[in-house]
Amino acid sequence: MSNNGSNPALKIIPLGGLHEIGKNTCVLEYNDEIVLLDAGLAFPTDGMHGVNIVLPDMTYLRENKHKIRGMIVTHGHEDHIGGIPFHLKQFDIPVIYGPRLAMALLAGKLEEAGVSDRTELRTVRPRDMVRIGAQFFVEYIRNTHSIADSFTVAIHTPVGMVIHTGDFKIDHTPVDGEHFDLHRLAEHGSKGVLCLISDSTNSEIPGFTASERSVYPNLDRIFSQAPGRLLVTTFASSVHRLNLILDLAARHQRTVAVVGRSMLNVIAHARNLGYLKCSDDLFQPLHGINQIPPQKILILTTGSQGEPMAALSRIANGDHRQIKIRSGDTVVFSANPIPGNTIAVVNTIDKLMMQGAKVIYGRDQGIHVSGHGCQEDQKLMIALTRPKFFLPVHGEHRMLVKHAETARSMGIPPENMVIINNGDIVELTPDSIQIGGKVPSGVELVDNTGVVNARVLKERQQLAEDGVVTVAVAISWQGELLATPEIHLRGVVTSLERSLLQRWVSEVMTETLRDRWADLARSDGEGQVEIDWVGLQTQLEREIQRMLRRELQSDPLLVLLMQNPLPHSQPSSSTPSPSPSPSPSSVRPALRQRSTAGVAS
Amino acid sequence: MSNNGSNPALKIIPLGGLHEIGKNTCVLEYNDEIVLLDAGLAFPTDGMHGVNIVLPDMTYLRENKHKIRGMIVTHGHEDHIGGIPFHLKQFDIPVIYGPRLAMALLAGKLEEAGVSDRTELRTVRPRDMVRIGAQFFVEYIRNTHSIADSFTVAIHTPVGMVIHTGDFKIDHTPVDGEHFDLHRLAEHGSKGVLCLISDSTNSEIPGFTASERSVYPNLDRIFSQAPGRLLVTTFASSVHRLNLILDLAARHQRTVAVVGRSMLNVIAHARNLGYLKCSDDLFQPLHGINQIPPQKILILTTGSQGEPMAALSRIANGDHRQIKIRSGDTVVFSANPIPGNTIAVVNTIDKLMMQGAKVIYGRDQGIHVSGHGCQEDQKLMIALTRPKFFLPVHGEHRMLVKHAETARSMGIPPENMVIINNGDIVELTPDSIQIGGKVPSGVELVDNTGVVNARVLKERQQLAEDGVVTVAVAISWQGELLATPEIHLRGVVTSLERSLLQRWVSEVMTETLRDRWADLARSDGEGQVEIDWVGLQTQLEREIQRMLRRELQSDPLLVLLMQNPLPHSQPSSSTPSPSPSPSPSSVRPALRQRSTAGVAS
Repeated sequence: MSNNGSNPALKIIPLGGLHEIGKNTCVLEYNDEIVLLDAGLAFPTDGMHGVNIVLPDMTYLRENKHKIRGMIVTHGHEDHIGGIPFHLKQFDIPVIYGPRLAMALLAGKLEEAGVSDRTELRTVRPRDMVRIGAQFFVEYIRNTHSIADSFTVAIHTPVGMVIHTGDFKIDHTPVDGEHFDLHRLAEHGSKGVLCLISDSTNSEIPGFTASERSVYPNLDRIFSQAPGRLLVTTFASSVHRLNLILDLAARHQRTVAVVGRSMLNVIAHARNLGYLKCSDDLFQPLHGINQIPPQKILILTTGSQGEPMAALSRIANGDHRQIKIRSGDTVVFSANPIPGNTIAVVNTIDKLMMQGAKVIYGRDQGIHVSGHGCQEDQKLMIALTRPKFFLPVHGEHRMLVKHAETARSMGIPPENMVIINNGDIVELTPDSIQIGGKVPSGVELVDNTGVVNARVLKERQQLAEDGVVTVAVAISWQGELLATPEIHLRGVVTSLERSLLQRWVSEVMTETLRDRWADLARSDGEGQVEIDWVGLQTQLEREIQRMLRRELQSDPLLVLLMQNPLPHSQPSSSTPSPSPSPSPSSVRPALRQRSTAGVAS
Repeated sequence: MSNNGSNPALKIIPLGGLHEIGKNTCVLEYNDEIVLLDAGLAFPTDGMHGVNIVLPDMTYLRENKHKIRGMIVTHGHEDHIGGIPFHLKQFDIPVIYGPRLAMALLAGKLEEAGVSDRTELRTVRPRDMVRIGAQFFVEYIRNTHSIADSFTVAIHTPVGMVIHTGDFKIDHTPVDGEHFDLHRLAEHGSKGVLCLISDSTNSEIPGFTASERSVYPNLDRIFSQAPGRLLVTTFASSVHRLNLILDLAARHQRTVAVVGRSMLNVIAHARNLGYLKCSDDLFQPLHGINQIPPQKILILTTGSQGEPMAALSRIANGDHRQIKIRSGDTVVFSANPIPGNTIAVVNTIDKLMMQGAKVIYGRDQGIHVSGHGCQEDQKLMIALTRPKFFLPVHGEHRMLVKHAETARSMGIPPENMVIINNGDIVELTPDSIQIGGKVPSGVELVDNTGVVNARVLKERQQLAEDGVVTVAVAISWQGELLATPEIHLRGVVTSLERSLLQRWVSEVMTETLRDRWADLARSDGEGQVEIDWVGLQTQLEREIQRMLRRELQSDPLLVLLMQNPLPHSQPSSSTPSPSPSPSPSSVRPALRQRSTAGVAS
């Protein structure tokens, strides 16, 4: 493992998951081989209007797709596998290794996206070792997390052993009895770990994260006290929590109806693979529950984060076709709001209460625990693996900083760790860790219909903030307005009369035409005038926008439609369609190349 | 105080502050006299695009302005006085009573808005009793809160004694030595309080709220450990906190530079009135601090909530002209994020850290306490006043519910309290409390330029989500398209070619014209054809919108511009401006009444 000086470094390039929680996507590269580790998605933040899904900038992988040898998946959460179907439309991944549950969830996604043929899914089990490419050997080490079947990976690379924790907490009393394989971690620690790449989510929080099992007695108490129907919401992917809830349902003799697409999907897969242990007759389709007494019903639903379209949100709004809140209902939020969702969640709680439900929520109820380890879990990970180098990942900047502070408190020197951002190229050799450059980073935004590029997003932001002003005008080949411009305002606040604005637009255009026409119109020497309609459009837009900003004291988007008559022709209003006028797209070919006035996407 | 059956009820009508934190505005009405209690503003929530300020719907007061006898102000927070300048533009308030600091802050606002002549401000002191109208006697009872000079009010009304707590916590060691006048509350409790109207903000939190003074030793420790410049942010209005910080600055021999408009404003007023006790030479203008060693500097700044335009946010973005973060700087957040601001605050923290600052934040630091009482404070209030009826206010719905539960646990029967929403008319008699109807409630939204009505907001929401499609078309008097319609997309995501969309729009319009023209065009009997351009526009918009929804799988706003030539005229392209064509606003008068096609605001 000594560095002879000529050996290249291992490159570790996270494309997502740093300075954020979400879209975890990591590239491991050595010579001409790339191995990917997870590829997740994130959800839009404020100002990403109309966006449904956020992906990392994949330029680097598109450009280096020939190097991709395979992918390691650590577990089945959306922020670790949700990006894969999108990426497979752009490049193949020869093989994807991952645990059973994650592979089952992923297979469904690939099928839905029609990209099942772009890769091969292979299931791994604890302590399995797989080779990817010629140089990467990956060992799967069972860990504990909020989803079942989650793994830490030990990656044997040409520069040394790299351990990537995946997402983890240290739960000594796991619900499924599958203990964290601390022994294997310790063995690696004894032999020597070059670098630990570790989950930073809860690095700001002192102490240990409580065991998943700790919520059981609190939920049990709530179940035993609920006089009527129980509605319980949690993250659909929290398989352990679902196990506890279903176990309690059976114990309290409540029949379970499941509501919400993602909840149905996870439960189907998890039952199928044996991760949820409960009998078939525990469940009842939703339409069947009206025959059952309220105190015998449990409705398990999506919507723990107040997502507008989720079942529980629709129930709270009174919009759900089959479920209406009635007096005696108890709604249990077995999940804390993710920062950014707080307002949506408390609004949902308020609406449920207003409809007469008793709502049980909040940290002091002991009905939710995190799936990520706090500072003491993180210390135990460092203590067992004894890494030479340390790379905090999976967290916002301050979480990475805190995690590095924790590592430092355990004796890892500052020069042996780097705090990085998405796109940074971490170069790891047996003797050093450093940032050796940057690949394109950033986001790709997806809405219902496709990729939302930066220009469209900026337009939406401007439209949202200040609305849109449409101006339609016709200009003669002599550079004069053919009529008063027509103006439409949408989403614009002003106390000004529209006729006044119309006059001002007219004045601005007249002035601009007077000042600029001579430069923009010139004879082609054969008696025809050529006019730089594009240049004119740009000039007019600038001047009108300036006037609008000044007079409206806001900055609406401007759409300027210029209708230019055919030169020297006299179109008749009785000419039947298709008439050649006044659309610029029907202007004679000779002019079209320069005359794209009014043509924009 | 007995009810002889013919006496009317006292009406208590909160127009704001219920089902929310913000814009506290309460109407007290008896016979033909109205007394207002506070009039605050709120800040926009998600989806209120471009909105700066939210006010309650003031319809009821506009319609009953002749009844207004005066206003009681309890303290100087924006959510209690911020609405007054806006309301005074709509109606006079003969007199406003309030404490010195609130009146000083309010006077500045009224002057700025140019409405100082619409009311008279009168300052009150502890235990002052004022008469408003013929029937309301209001006694000011000192309380403790995060802003100095805050009051609970005891209102003697014809139906009995009503106590409104204002905003309060119970702080036995107040920073300014001004103790809560618990004795006066107790006296009223002994004599008999008909109704307690009480602050519900922290009703979900068990225990007592810690004293403001408790943050002092923690800030002291941070001050003594900071190696370089200190930047401290808190709510500008937290006068007690400012006192502590300025005291510590003097103790640690740091010169103070103040940044941010609201911070400068509050400090000026509070120093002027003696609420901030510090010597002039403690302060230094910002431009003077470069001559001072870093460890002798404290910068007191706005931006504790991550507000985008606040000084600290601009510093974090590297956009502040005078202050750049350097290594050794310590930034202290002496404020918790209000729910909804969390993401903005943590982003600011991250950016400050990335620029090299040490940032101290978070609940476990003990550097912020709430200004509102928790459950035990609320119980003490109920215990001292011993009200017959109870009305929880100042809180979101679940907070009101929790507060009512607390009151019930102290023996107030459920039928003696009501949980209400903005606009509810609470009717209070010596024997009963009930909801007796509703006045218009809701919001009035204000942006830089004026009131944002519901239509404009809805347009902005649609624009933000799906963008705008502009279609320009000319239609002949024979009901035929004069050219291919012109289409512009802004903020729209689609993989469709624009020319294809153009063809589809054209087809939809041609079909609609074919199907509907006969109904829309009719002869007036004198050889002239009258065309229902408005009806046609509506039809065309509906059909185009339907096609766009289907083909784009989104719902962009549609702006349809119809240019209709003059009937039977042949406009020449060489006709100089102003030409009568093609703008509909220049269509001959006889037609204009029906032809408002394309005219919208």
